[in-house]
Amino acid sequence: MSHNSFGHLFRVTTWGESHGPAIGCVVDGCPPRLALTEADIQPFLDRRRPGQSSFTTQRQEADQVRILSGTLDGLTTGTPIGLMIENTDQRSRDYGDIAERFRPGHADLTYELKYGIRDWRGGGRSSARETAMRVAAGAVARRVLGDTVRIRGAMVQMGSHAIDRAAWDWNEIDRNAFFCPDPATAAAWEAELLDIRKSGSSIGAVIELVAEGVPPGLGAPIYGKLDADIAAALMSINAVKGVEIGDGFAAATLRGEGNADEMHMRDGLVQFETNHAGGILGGISTGQAVVARFAVKPTSSILQSRRSVDRHGHDVNVATRGRHDPCVGIRAVPVGEAMLACVLADHLLRQRAQNPDAPSLPRLPRN
Amino acid sequence: MSHNSFGHLFRVTTWGESHGPAIGCVVDGCPPRLALTEADIQPFLDRRRPGQSSFTTQRQEADQVRILSGTLDGLTTGTPIGLMIENTDQRSRDYGDIAERFRPGHADLTYELKYGIRDWRGGGRSSARETAMRVAAGAVARRVLGDTVRIRGAMVQMGSHAIDRAAWDWNEIDRNAFFCPDPATAAAWEAELLDIRKSGSSIGAVIELVAEGVPPGLGAPIYGKLDADIAAALMSINAVKGVEIGDGFAAATLRGEGNADEMHMRDGLVQFETNHAGGILGGISTGQAVVARFAVKPTSSILQSRRSVDRHGHDVNVATRGRHDPCVGIRAVPVGEAMLACVLADHLLRQRAQNPDAPSLPRLPRN
Amino acid sequence: MSHNSFGHLFRVTTWGESHGPAIGCVVDGCPPRLALTEADIQPFLDRRRPGQSSFTTQRQEADQVRILSGTLDGLTTGTPIGLMIENTDQRSRDYGDIAERFRPGHADLTYELKYGIRDWRGGGRSSARETAMRVAAGAVARRVLGDTVRIRGAMVQMGSHAIDRAAWDWNEIDRNAFFCPDPATAAAWEAELLDIRKSGSSIGAVIELVAEGVPPGLGAPIYGKLDADIAAALMSINAVKGVEIGDGFAAATLRGEGNADEMHMRDGLVQFETNHAGGILGGISTGQAVVARFAVKPTSSILQSRRSVDRHGHDVNVATRGRHDPCVGIRAVPVGEAMLACVLADHLLRQRAQNPDAPSLPRLPRN
Amino acid sequence: MSHNSFGHLFRVTTWGESHGPAIGCVVDGCPPRLALTEADIQPFLDRRRPGQSSFTTQRQEADQVRILSGTLDGLTTGTPIGLMIENTDQRSRDYGDIAERFRPGHADLTYELKYGIRDWRGGGRSSARETAMRVAAGAVARRVLGDTVRIRGAMVQMGSHAIDRAAWDWNEIDRNAFFCPDPATAAAWEAELLDIRKSGSSIGAVIELVAEGVPPGLGAPIYGKLDADIAAALMSINAVKGVEIGDGFAAATLRGEGNADEMHMRDGLVQFETNHAGGILGGISTGQAVVARFAVKPTSSILQSRRSVDRHGHDVNVATRGRHDPCVGIRAVPVGEAMLACVLADHLLRQRAQNPDAPSLPRLPRN
Repeated sequence: MSHNSFGHLFRVTTWGESHGPAIGCVVDGCPPRLALTEADIQPFLDRRRPGQSSFTTQRQEADQVRILSGTLDGLTTGTPIGLMIENTDQRSRDYGDIAERFRPGHADLTYELKYGIRDWRGGGRSSARETAMRVAAGAVARRVLGDTVRIRGAMVQMGSHAIDRAAWDWNEIDRNAFFCPDPATAAAWEAELLDIRKSGSSIGAVIELVAEGVPPGLGAPIYGKLDADIAAALMSINAVKGVEIGDGFAAATLRGEGNADEMHMRDGLVQFETNHAGGILGGISTGQAVVARFAVKPTSSILQSRRSVDRHGHDVNVATRGRHDPCVGIRAVPVGEAMLACVLADHLLRQRAQNPDAPSLPRLPRN
Repeated sequence: MSHNSFGHLFRVTTWGESHGPAIGCVVDGCPPRLALTEADIQPFLDRRRPGQSSFTTQRQEADQVRILSGTLDGLTTGTPIGLMIENTDQRSRDYGDIAERFRPGHADLTYELKYGIRDWRGGGRSSARETAMRVAAGAVARRVLGDTVRIRGAMVQMGSHAIDRAAWDWNEIDRNAFFCPDPATAAAWEAELLDIRKSGSSIGAVIELVAEGVPPGLGAPIYGKLDADIAAALMSINAVKGVEIGDGFAAATLRGEGNADEMHMRDGLVQFETNHAGGILGGISTGQAVVARFAVKPTSSILQSRRSVDRHGHDVNVATRGRHDPCVGIRAVPVGEAMLACVLADHLLRQRAQNPDAPSLPRLPRN
Repeated sequence: MSHNSFGHLFRVTTWGESHGPAIGCVVDGCPPRLALTEADIQPFLDRRRPGQSSFTTQRQEADQVRILSGTLDGLTTGTPIGLMIENTDQRSRDYGDIAERFRPGHADLTYELKYGIRDWRGGGRSSARETAMRVAAGAVARRVLGDTVRIRGAMVQMGSHAIDRAAWDWNEIDRNAFFCPDPATAAAWEAELLDIRKSGSSIGAVIELVAEGVPPGLGAPIYGKLDADIAAALMSINAVKGVEIGDGFAAATLRGEGNADEMHMRDGLVQFETNHAGGILGGISTGQAVVARFAVKPTSSILQSRRSVDRHGHDVNVATRGRHDPCVGIRAVPVGEAMLACVLADHLLRQRAQNPDAPSLPRLPRN
Repeated sequence: MSHNSFGHLFRVTTWGESHGPAIGCVVDGCPPRLALTEADIQPFLDRRRPGQSSFTTQRQEADQVRILSGTLDGLTTGTPIGLMIENTDQRSRDYGDIAERFRPGHADLTYELKYGIRDWRGGGRSSARETAMRVAAGAVARRVLGDTVRIRGAMVQMGSHAIDRAAWDWNEIDRNAFFCPDPATAAAWEAELLDIRKSGSSIGAVIELVAEGVPPGLGAPIYGKLDADIAAALMSINAVKGVEIGDGFAAATLRGEGNADEMHMRDGLVQFETNHAGGILGGISTGQAVVARFAVKPTSSILQSRRSVDRHGHDVNVATRGRHDPCVGIRAVPVGEAMLACVLADHLLRQRAQNPDAPSLPRLPRN
């Protein structure tokens, strides 16, 4: 991944600032003759769109995506797919205060240090608004992966309050404002987050992603390992501070015999008895579900006042106005799904290039 | 990162199998006129070298590195630096059992699934032996970074037993077999690991890396973020299942006001009061210490018998002979340091290219 | 260069089809705090714009460029610069005939063979319309290079009729429709091209590019040589079939002593007595003018009828209607300049990364 | 292409200096299960090897290649293939004179300007010795392409003396010291080159490459066009100053109707009546033979004295001793073939990734 592009063969380049005229991306390397219209992308954007509950920023953006190139009569042509969303609800005045001062814990400071200039309006390039284009690109990636690969995400922890994994029901995901698979926990979070918002604060979260139907053999060792690329993709999302594959940090506590996912044959296919590995061994997919988790810190734009400095080298206090998510982890769910889709699509193409006759099912390649 | 290369401008390509004639790497893009001889690289290799305590594999490798190109009279020339280590203690016969069968939790299976062929001798390309070349490349990266950047690593948890962080003493690192900064914990680990080894098992670990003196401004948003590249670099190390920056997963439990690293001015420089961010905001270094952690699973090569399958589709049991580390996390410490060094060196060059007049200290760029 | 992106650090990605709603590009890696508004880009686009003389296509496009991201208050911010031009004069009906049949010598056939689908409207992605975005990106590249680097191009041959190099006057370039530095030849070409156009035919051309003020040391041997990247950049332009550096193919006819550019010292600087090398030795700029030439074939869209086949495997005859350039070489001049600018800007950044203290003048680095 | 690597999916990285202990390369991305031993590579190296006739340098190198990784039992494994050749006949003392002074027309000067240091022994990294590894990598590329693709090269011009194309006989290539397909011209060149060598001079040449059996659809528009990548690959060879595809610069002299390669159907396949395009349209292969030419300047290491400067800023005269090729174009033939093979192999993999069901014959994809 390099500057504002990610992926090698399925390659996404994004551009745009929070309060500029538009944001957009170029999806390059997409195979031709896949069905693709705006209607295939919009539903994913709608899931990420702000202003849908009292738990996300009240910015009202239609987030209507336009396909500007790369398709003909509803089919991809193999040429770069240009996507664009116009920004319609920019209230830059909300941000006048932070033009000259740096929110603690925010990229305000580092953009200034790196570039000596920054678009302070709404956070400019560092705004989570950029993630809309990741979601759009992810919708294209899903087309590349096809229907046999299913990628879903869920928020599994808010603050210190984790879900009850025994109650996991994917059908619940769309029935609450948290993408939470456990309805009881969702209800509790609702009360907690209202309190947090009222107090002018914010809270972190953990998101879990599961990709089923991933063919075995994806991943390009040693330095293009599937898990390495997933780690980079998820860590590149705003506010993410940690990434795990499979058992993740818990694997550090295991003994070898506890960590080993035992196997046996059934109907000529390899069967795994557990999935501590999260579907990846040696950087290559096993054919089991790929499982990843990432931790999102609390948003740094809070109403509570914090000590900071300004561009002129004065001590100041900063309390952010503007419209912010009390828990950015919520909207990170569709973003994480999209990043995982992009990584898998890229590796599907890479695998096809080097190993065109690789098995599509986790069976043994020869007998 | 792509296949067997990582980095953009400071670019490392490794080659070699565990039981082939040699392993090597090419370090491309290194600035010229830096002092570099084998003596600058060997000490780092010696720290990673197996057979130094009863807690690492008993394979005896001198791991003598040779510089084959890219230097003249002890100075780098700007041309690619070819490094090579001959393999001298290969006992392929130890691995005859796994030529046909797959160790559960090991890359044996996935290399077979991906490529339809694998060098089974000692794990071939998937062996941790490859990490020797990372360590060699890391030594070159340290030259690029210069003396003002100090990168150190420590094992901070073995199994469920974490160190006492209040007892942290960097001077202890080299006084025990665990790169442990807390001597009391090191002593306890010694007893525990002897038991684990005796029982034919293995155990996981957590390693923490700290880079001090990192100039602010390193990192290429959005998809070349410093933390994204660190995450990929660490996740690409054998057996790693999780990566954290700064507070990592604990950040998910924080409120916004608790996570914000407050700032004030002192002597014209920005001072941070805490470092929850681990030295990175918005994917760009702040000038604070860069702090990263990674989790290493227990090695899958254990004496205890596990259920598995063979290449012919038969159910089998696998118990690994051969010489293995009961806790691969130990030798992952110098490897993690090296990967962090490589990422920082790469980003130093990238920053220099786009922002040649960026501040070298965390001060405000203009007043 | 990869798919629809070129450059490593100064990286341009283009998108868009001839008859889609818009074309655009993303310029990534541009240093911050450079003055840049639409007014800095538009003049270069105007030079390439069709419909300006009777010798270019009569398509009328305003080619008004918009900067959609990457600048604030007229300064670049270091974030990706999104540029877009709306297509306003698409007459797809002119192309109905070629929806099903392939123009001989045109990419119609190969896009169909590669992708199994193609946007036939106006040539789709293969149209020279894409080169407008190269010109826009080139204008940004010139900002990166600064005023000390001057890049100019001229048409030096049309068909078999070459200019009189003794009559070369750069001031003449903008006084004729051919970017021709020799007014007498320009007048002759005018008569010749009118005849060619009347006969429903087209003609090839040779363009020469000269970049003065290029600092020595640009170029990344062995496989990122400056001349190799220039060759790729120019060969990537529509209809280009040959590229030369310095004496080019004529160098094959020389003896060693005739080819050697002798040197002597003057005022502490190295002086070259000739420039057979075209400013590049060993893939690295010498500080002399960089000189490159490229050959453009005649456009394949001609009124004269040619034998071909259609998508259904029938023999057909093809005579192209639509609006076409009788000599595409003319408008290739600003495109060639732009590509050279982009390559030089990219290598300037790359050089800065690896060799930040490289000499900026062709003097000897130490004494 | 970037620094010392070229290719995207079939990726070659070379290292080593002329008079260092060894030279080598890493071939990454090679598909698995291809038959490959040293015996598959050595014959190509032997064709390039110096000291085989009185028309090449008298340096005596066995150029014995070793495969150090990436194969098992004579089959590729999909992991990086490490290749190495030891340098055995270095006479650095021959070069003592040029340690301090710059050969006019040679990279001596520019390496010094770029890096501030250079390995002067035998030209160091800029020596044509590096091309041995290109030839080795090319042999691997041929394996990837398989037997249906045939790549051959010939020297078609020495100085101003071109072959008689009517006399072209591929069988003659290996019967003379010039890779010349026209025996009468070969005989004449022999006399001419003896004279040139006696006079302490050197001479340029033109090489033509022909690849038959290239499947249609190879090439990644817009900036990864097949001809753009070929141009870069050939221009990256030492001493090359020009590259042509198909008619090349002669295409500039043609009318549209003369340049168009007409087509008709025969037996359900598209038949071309001519091949002005050199097998590439719009950057994509047509299925016809790919034809490329490149011009090589005379070697700059000549016995005749030339005016130059030294590192201390003094005017000097330079006459090169050492052992040099009077016509480096001769040994450039196998190097050019190898580069073309590498580009085609890379694009074969890229095509497979994006268009796995692309037609393998130049037939129409659907009816």
